[in-house]
Amino acid sequence: MALRRIVLIGAGNVATHLGLAFLNKGLIIEQVYSRTALSANSLAAKLHAVPVIRSEEIMPGADLYIISVSDDAITEIVKKINFGESPVVHTSGTVPMDIFKQSAPAYGVFYPLQTFSKDREIDFSTVPVLIEASDPQLERMLADLGNLISARVQVCDSEKRKIIHLAAVFACNFSNFMYTLSEEILSSQQLSFDLLRPLILETAGKVMRQNPRDAQTGPAIRNDRSVMETHLQLLAGDPEKHEIYKILSKPISKLVNKENHGG
Amino acid sequence: MALRRIVLIGAGNVATHLGLAFLNKGLIIEQVYSRTALSANSLAAKLHAVPVIRSEEIMPGADLYIISVSDDAITEIVKKINFGESPVVHTSGTVPMDIFKQSAPAYGVFYPLQTFSKDREIDFSTVPVLIEASDPQLERMLADLGNLISARVQVCDSEKRKIIHLAAVFACNFSNFMYTLSEEILSSQQLSFDLLRPLILETAGKVMRQNPRDAQTGPAIRNDRSVMETHLQLLAGDPEKHEIYKILSKPISKLVNKENHGG
Repeated sequence: MALRRIVLIGAGNVATHLGLAFLNKGLIIEQVYSRTALSANSLAAKLHAVPVIRSEEIMPGADLYIISVSDDAITEIVKKINFGESPVVHTSGTVPMDIFKQSAPAYGVFYPLQTFSKDREIDFSTVPVLIEASDPQLERMLADLGNLISARVQVCDSEKRKIIHLAAVFACNFSNFMYTLSEEILSSQQLSFDLLRPLILETAGKVMRQNPRDAQTGPAIRNDRSVMETHLQLLAGDPEKHEIYKILSKPISKLVNKENHGG
Repeated sequence: MALRRIVLIGAGNVATHLGLAFLNKGLIIEQVYSRTALSANSLAAKLHAVPVIRSEEIMPGADLYIISVSDDAITEIVKKINFGESPVVHTSGTVPMDIFKQSAPAYGVFYPLQTFSKDREIDFSTVPVLIEASDPQLERMLADLGNLISARVQVCDSEKRKIIHLAAVFACNFSNFMYTLSEEILSSQQLSFDLLRPLILETAGKVMRQNPRDAQTGPAIRNDRSVMETHLQLLAGDPEKHEIYKILSKPISKLVNKENHGG
């Protein structure tokens, strides 16, 4: 049985981008549920779906229910929905699949490994989609669904997915925070963040082929103590950045580097 | 007087990329100096220049000497060269311009703000080039030289350049180290870093327009304590990553975020 009719529970960035991607591939989003009327209405309008703000109004008999709300809210919303004979998945990196065990006959996970923003389009074809299912039939269904929008669908169990999500926090959330700290350093001297944008893009671009360990540059890996001392002095008035600078430079200086680098 | 004939002191990544960019614009690289014969020969061959490994053989009377060696080595090499009436610049982010005060009649800085790798081409037109000069005539000459290869040449004094270089350490060196930590987490479970590459590129791509503070996502800024607890438990056997996770999550959780994000 081909999957055609989807109910989306949640109206955040992941729900929005998934919904649009599915719509583009000819699937039907029947309903969009959100506790907030504004969110439900706005996403439902984009997806030609019916907005729903009361969980009792979620329709029975969809081909698939996709729950895309914050991790903490999943358990609560699951209790309120009668899935009947239909399968249900969530889109979380961390929540185990078993959270659905008591609630649905077939259940799984459909986790797109990407950072989604309100106003940025995503090329879904390159986004890894990690799937997991309680039975082989649903696994096939989720693989087919994933293959509609992405060329990188993989089966991945809950334990591995948790590890990947942790790694993603370092690669995405923490690297973005490094950008934030650099922006703060610049703006404290009335300097524009624009100065660093080409550098940031190239730093990410380098590891598209290279291993990041081999791409490491800077004073710490060169063990350039005079530069590091200068930097720590510049940060003397900012204990938070001072500590972060020290704590990150130490392990970097222990790496062995293959690049012969001047910056 | 138009600048035509350059002597390059140094044969690392910055010297290589600058030399190639200048050659492409019709300038003449007369000599390439490096203490290592292999490096001198290899870069000189690329630049149709004469390789030099003894500082006494560095020719007099070039239009410009560009010193692109590690910060610590600048002072030493400067002592050994007779610049005559010719101007000299270095390409360092941190070293003050005054290092040349006793050694040359005109001196300055030509700092391309980018991370350079051996085997990656750079689109120099987008690279900020920060220049500084001991007199207006050299400043004009360096501005002209910069404008040959980049659309983003700016005059910047040594104090500001030092701040910008510090910010670049966070934006480039430390964010790359976050990639390294994520790679280690994945490889410890036989998972491929390929999984994170689209995420890393999009994370950098987002801040090309947005302020990084507004682009912050993840469990810390959502104050999702159960996810953070799970992550810290997963890192219990790795004190270094455990500490970094805690120290970075704390200030992130104090940020106020404009994104309503699900991942």
